[in-house]
Amino acid sequence: MNLDALYSELTLKMNAKVVLVVLDGLGDIATREQNFLTPLEAATTPNLDALAKESAQGRMIPVAPGITPGSGPGHLGLFGYDPLEFQVGRGVIEALGLGVELQPGDVCARANFATLDANGIVTDRRAGRIPTETCEKLCAMLSAKVKTIGDTEIIIKAGKEHRFVVVFRGKGLEGPLTDADPNREGFAIPTVKPRDAKNLKQKKMAKLIADFYKQALPIIAKEKPANGFLMRGIAHQPEIPLFEDRYKLKPAALAVYPMYKGLSQLVGMKKIEGPQTIAEQFERYVAEYDNFDFFFIHYKYTDKAGEDGNFTAKMKAIQDFDAALPILLRKRPDVLAITGDHSTPCAVHGHSWHPQPVLLNSKLSGSDKLERFTETGANLGSLGVFEAKYLIRLMQANAKMFDKFGA
Amino acid sequence: MNLDALYSELTLKMNAKVVLVVLDGLGDIATREQNFLTPLEAATTPNLDALAKESAQGRMIPVAPGITPGSGPGHLGLFGYDPLEFQVGRGVIEALGLGVELQPGDVCARANFATLDANGIVTDRRAGRIPTETCEKLCAMLSAKVKTIGDTEIIIKAGKEHRFVVVFRGKGLEGPLTDADPNREGFAIPTVKPRDAKNLKQKKMAKLIADFYKQALPIIAKEKPANGFLMRGIAHQPEIPLFEDRYKLKPAALAVYPMYKGLSQLVGMKKIEGPQTIAEQFERYVAEYDNFDFFFIHYKYTDKAGEDGNFTAKMKAIQDFDAALPILLRKRPDVLAITGDHSTPCAVHGHSWHPQPVLLNSKLSGSDKLERFTETGANLGSLGVFEAKYLIRLMQANAKMFDKFGA
Repeated sequence: MNLDALYSELTLKMNAKVVLVVLDGLGDIATREQNFLTPLEAATTPNLDALAKESAQGRMIPVAPGITPGSGPGHLGLFGYDPLEFQVGRGVIEALGLGVELQPGDVCARANFATLDANGIVTDRRAGRIPTETCEKLCAMLSAKVKTIGDTEIIIKAGKEHRFVVVFRGKGLEGPLTDADPNREGFAIPTVKPRDAKNLKQKKMAKLIADFYKQALPIIAKEKPANGFLMRGIAHQPEIPLFEDRYKLKPAALAVYPMYKGLSQLVGMKKIEGPQTIAEQFERYVAEYDNFDFFFIHYKYTDKAGEDGNFTAKMKAIQDFDAALPILLRKRPDVLAITGDHSTPCAVHGHSWHPQPVLLNSKLSGSDKLERFTETGANLGSLGVFEAKYLIRLMQANAKMFDKFGA
Repeated sequence: MNLDALYSELTLKMNAKVVLVVLDGLGDIATREQNFLTPLEAATTPNLDALAKESAQGRMIPVAPGITPGSGPGHLGLFGYDPLEFQVGRGVIEALGLGVELQPGDVCARANFATLDANGIVTDRRAGRIPTETCEKLCAMLSAKVKTIGDTEIIIKAGKEHRFVVVFRGKGLEGPLTDADPNREGFAIPTVKPRDAKNLKQKKMAKLIADFYKQALPIIAKEKPANGFLMRGIAHQPEIPLFEDRYKLKPAALAVYPMYKGLSQLVGMKKIEGPQTIAEQFERYVAEYDNFDFFFIHYKYTDKAGEDGNFTAKMKAIQDFDAALPILLRKRPDVLAITGDHSTPCAVHGHSWHPQPVLLNSKLSGSDKLERFTETGANLGSLGVFEAKYLIRLMQANAKMFDKFGA
């Protein structure tokens, strides 16, 4: 029997309040350079410590052993969607990251401005990494002239340096397509093709890309050095079962950065705008307590510090978080999970595969008798090491949302 | 999406040196008789202790909970091949163990000398367990007279007591076949049949076995008590994706016993001959450091002592290993895993299903803050309890060989 179908069959609607707090990239590793302490271990966290005494702990594998996830798979896993089953194209992720409010069926492409010679050969795939302002100017030029192709709306949004995204919003469109990118210099831009030759929607989409090139290239033909562009990761927003239907929990997202707002919207969470700090996010949670069953609260600064390899900044980000935690606990949820979407160890300067620690608190979580919430402590917890996609199921169980299976 | 396909897609070629050290049957259990210590816990292991402080630990399930593996599945798992997906027939394992250098497509059978009565009824399936010398003499008689059947080469190799193997090397041959063994006394030797009645290569192979019996039986018909033989586990060497293709690591094997040389050759590792002791194996690793990316180093004596139920000998084998370890560390690999292929607890006097401890060391393994490498310590490690087939993936991750999954 399909496990998701079983969970669904056993799910009961309850009036529990369930909160998932994600400290992005929380997990870390203990190294000699830092006296064998992780930032979480080195930080002073009286509020997390108090919570830990009454909580269960464990560690979560974001995708599969050894796999380092991007933010997309990391969050889909936390939202209970198998990241291997529900794959989101890079164009979609990029568009979400730039704050484009995607609609189901939108096809997105990551794009780069590039330099072409007189014969259309790519001589610089990144057009010398033009400044962001130039990119914004070029995107504005394209946006002004290419608003629609047939009945398809074209949305162009500038990113950093040479990067931008193009979103195609229309009927009967689908990805994935091959790239309009030779992936090296010295070649012309290849014509995109459907990944599945028999898929008529992909065929229509490939034609649309060709038409887009026909209209857009002349607009920037006289620019220097960015007189062309490449497109990659062309795919539609995948159909993902709505969070509320799947878990019988009415969800809201309290995130500051566009990427995480976007990822929560992919599964149909209601975006709550406004709060900028974790204290403000928690205040807003308290204010919205009665309006939703499930709150996803995203905190970015642990990941940022990890990416920079800045141990002290990561420790500080954790301490800032801990200081704000009592605001959340003013309206104590029935079930609270605090974790990361993956590890971003300072020693790695980026995302990694190391299982992130998770703390699960409810009246029924039990206590693992751990004095603190840390990676090393989490190794000893009752939750063990498990795949992140099961966290939401444990939260539902703690909310008494599952009927007994079998007599 | 298929997980192996994902791993493969994300794999980057790196110049990392990756070393897998297998202490055969390393895992053990703590019993009252041994003051609740395992041999690993009772042993004095200063070098492993020093390594443990900077390493991650965990325990590995060789195949599935409760399953006791033979050396074949145990090692295939360590090499990253699901032992349920890649099954190697007992004939193949036996041939490898006797040092036959198999080629792809070879069909192997385990054989026993047996006693038949005048009507061809099996009266003793093991021919009274004839001495090894008699077995060697009989095999030589068969080898001398049955060198080929049609265009198929026949290789016969004596084992211990009544045991031997027959290898059929030719074109268009395949197993598995049913056994030429009634599995009890009082019955005739059954005619072998294809396991898949429609498989023409199996049919050809079944005919070949019948022809082999026709030629071979008369040669020993007058011998006593071994005037017949039985054949089991008749199967071909399975097609296994090459280690180097699968992991982008150029592999070498430093093993002393034929079985482990053979298993490493099954996946295409380069066999390095010569070293007889673990110190010599490590010396050779140092000498060959630049020539390969991956080294499989096999140490047999922990398993032997476990099979004998000899606690002191197993402890001593671990101490001998520990004493040689500094030689390996002279050329410290980027990633080092030390583990067993399964447990061989002294109290069991044989292989068992108990998860074996594993130590994983790299600049990015993180430290689990454990003072020693032991079964009990490994229970507390960040790697948790996981299937052995993922170890190679964790080693690849530690060697930074995986690109990020998703944006």
